[in-house]
Amino acid sequence: MWFTERQKPGVGITCKVLRTLHREISPFQEIAVLDTEQFGRVLVLDGMIQTTIFDEFVYHEMLAHVPLNTHPAPRDVLIIGGGDGGTAREVLRHPQIEKITLVEIDRRVVEICSHFLPELASSFDHPKVKVHFEDGAEYVQKKEVSYDVILVDAPEPVGRAARLFSSEFYQAIFQALRPDGLFVAQTESPFFNQDLITSVYQEVNRIFPITKLYLAVVPTYPSGFWSFTLGSKRFDPEMLSEDYYFSQAFRYYTPEIHQAAFKLPPFVHALSSPGG
Amino acid sequence: MWFTERQKPGVGITCKVLRTLHREISPFQEIAVLDTEQFGRVLVLDGMIQTTIFDEFVYHEMLAHVPLNTHPAPRDVLIIGGGDGGTAREVLRHPQIEKITLVEIDRRVVEICSHFLPELASSFDHPKVKVHFEDGAEYVQKKEVSYDVILVDAPEPVGRAARLFSSEFYQAIFQALRPDGLFVAQTESPFFNQDLITSVYQEVNRIFPITKLYLAVVPTYPSGFWSFTLGSKRFDPEMLSEDYYFSQAFRYYTPEIHQAAFKLPPFVHALSSPGG
Repeated sequence: MWFTERQKPGVGITCKVLRTLHREISPFQEIAVLDTEQFGRVLVLDGMIQTTIFDEFVYHEMLAHVPLNTHPAPRDVLIIGGGDGGTAREVLRHPQIEKITLVEIDRRVVEICSHFLPELASSFDHPKVKVHFEDGAEYVQKKEVSYDVILVDAPEPVGRAARLFSSEFYQAIFQALRPDGLFVAQTESPFFNQDLITSVYQEVNRIFPITKLYLAVVPTYPSGFWSFTLGSKRFDPEMLSEDYYFSQAFRYYTPEIHQAAFKLPPFVHALSSPGG
Repeated sequence: MWFTERQKPGVGITCKVLRTLHREISPFQEIAVLDTEQFGRVLVLDGMIQTTIFDEFVYHEMLAHVPLNTHPAPRDVLIIGGGDGGTAREVLRHPQIEKITLVEIDRRVVEICSHFLPELASSFDHPKVKVHFEDGAEYVQKKEVSYDVILVDAPEPVGRAARLFSSEFYQAIFQALRPDGLFVAQTESPFFNQDLITSVYQEVNRIFPITKLYLAVVPTYPSGFWSFTLGSKRFDPEMLSEDYYFSQAFRYYTPEIHQAAFKLPPFVHALSSPGG
């Protein structure tokens, strides 16, 4: 059996499925876990690949360590989404982290990943991690706590998740950050989602003093090229903090990759400076 | 109609075909030109995507400009393969170039690309470009001329093209280069072709004083992540030459991208230093 994700109307990725490990309709979406020949276990939500054992390390390392190594003392981290646990796992590596709040709308994603993707989801058992099952956009509006770093580990901007790419959401993120805080959001492919990247960049740039794009390669995501948009109140993400954390366990992130990831090809740079 | 390339036994890319513009069996291979919805016109050899209008700029800019901006005065360039013309087009941009020798085994590739992919193949009409229709491995063995830069724009290492990944070939390349010359070969995906990259790196490193890997993102190539192996007799490719050439027409390459491309994620670095 083969699973095909239509990534654009005219292009798809197809992979050989050894076994369907799980499949259900939760109150929010269709959740599937497939065991594939090339990518190992794959989490699929509403037909779209969210993460695979093969290349999840790239996405999770780059989402977590770039902002955490920008902030000189990140202690309180909020993760919006991230129900597979991979982002929390990476954040936990930083010795300075005291508390991780993860807000995932779909309890079943966490439960299913805890069972089928323990390499990622074992982070949920850590005492520093607190999971809330509610809408991330609503949670961040409440502004009950302030954070040093917020990581928006959102799915594609379709349906309910579209709110996680809105200016109201970025404004709420700004309010929920401490005066030297910063946030990162995954913002799709610079080859396939150029309008989205431009629009997010402009919204974030209206709110945050420092806004930058950076890039990484995730083969199972559309086009393989992935963008992250970072908004910061004080610290420039191209400068690593003096106390940056590096581990030999990292497979993609290094301090050099951190800085190289901000070097944008002209066709990507143009997305952050339309007309210029 | 959809065209699917099986990139690995368990994974493929599939794209919607608007029209098959050409299809024939040459003495060397099956050649097809498809017009696709997402990627525009696509050159397919023996069922494998070679180049597309959508993302060819990445591959050709990175294959050509990294070595040409390493060498302080590149005048004579040899291209092995490159029958679509994209690499020659990029080399022609450098004002210092005096002569480009292109050795393509299959005359029909050049003829078909001249007709269907003029954005790439118009370079063949330039007076600085001389095309030879013969086996690249045999041509370079003859050592009739010496070159400043050799670009190995080879297809996948299957069938006859496997010779373009052999130690005898790299030895002949070394002999065909001037005492300060350098060469680059495309060496497939660091996600999907790790053994190949390690083996090429070791062979080249045995022959050349300086051997380095660099990376770029080409969505229509397997995994989207692509490696280039560079062997140099004198100049370090991480240092741009003082007279490097940059054009506003470049869409991927910049001097900063040049240097960033050599920053390897640990899982890629490991391919060039097995066991270390």
